[in-house]
Amino acid sequence: MAAACIFCKIIKGEIPSMKLFESDKTLAFLDINPLSYGHSLIIPKHHGAKLTDIPDDSLLEILQVTKKLAAASGVENYNILQNNGRAAHQEVDHVHFHMIPKPNQEEGLGISWPMKKGDTDTLKKLQEELRSKM
Amino acid sequence: MAAACIFCKIIKGEIPSMKLFESDKTLAFLDINPLSYGHSLIIPKHHGAKLTDIPDDSLLEILQVTKKLAAASGVENYNILQNNGRAAHQEVDHVHFHMIPKPNQEEGLGISWPMKKGDTDTLKKLQEELRSKM
Repeated sequence: MAAACIFCKIIKGEIPSMKLFESDKTLAFLDINPLSYGHSLIIPKHHGAKLTDIPDDSLLEILQVTKKLAAASGVENYNILQNNGRAAHQEVDHVHFHMIPKPNQEEGLGISWPMKKGDTDTLKKLQEELRSKM
Repeated sequence: MAAACIFCKIIKGEIPSMKLFESDKTLAFLDINPLSYGHSLIIPKHHGAKLTDIPDDSLLEILQVTKKLAAASGVENYNILQNNGRAAHQEVDHVHFHMIPKPNQEEGLGISWPMKKGDTDTLKKLQEELRSKM
């Protein structure tokens, strides 16, 4: 827990939230500034800014709860998004997964996809490097 | 497994891929049309188009592997993204999680965030509805 963290305060009940699901390791609640109807957040109770800061056992339930939420929402099109770092659009430094329904072009997450053709040699070197580190 | 699915073919080895990690339930490999250096994909071997189609036990490892990959990549800013449905930018109908480094403004995932101020009454009704369905 981090004293100044708004999501830790929500977990502790010091700030109200519209809770959807709660267990000892996980909390889900509605985003109060939604990108679309049904936009919700799923967070580990363990405080950490980025995915790499969260212990494995605090990640186990996240996708199951996210899946339950997507099913309960009955949405057809939706994005699951977890941002790490300011440059990647993270605003609260406590890991959170967005479940964002995409009902139409105007609402929900806006995505642009500046795809490049990967260079095979570069990718092969990267593959070796990553494999050696995992 | 789905005969016509490109990711099922990658899992079966019928199409080559730059594998980073493999277990009985999970596969990770480099995206060959990356948005940025290090863009990789993490998929359950279980075939299903959307998150709601994947059994819980095939989701357990996904975030642990994603986290390992982010750590191995040594990236500071990155997005984890899983798209469901064409309207939500899904192009291959086999659930896949993107790990997309965000090294600068030009490369990586482009995000726009059409945030709205949520109406409290509407959110409260939604909360009750979702809780009753979860």
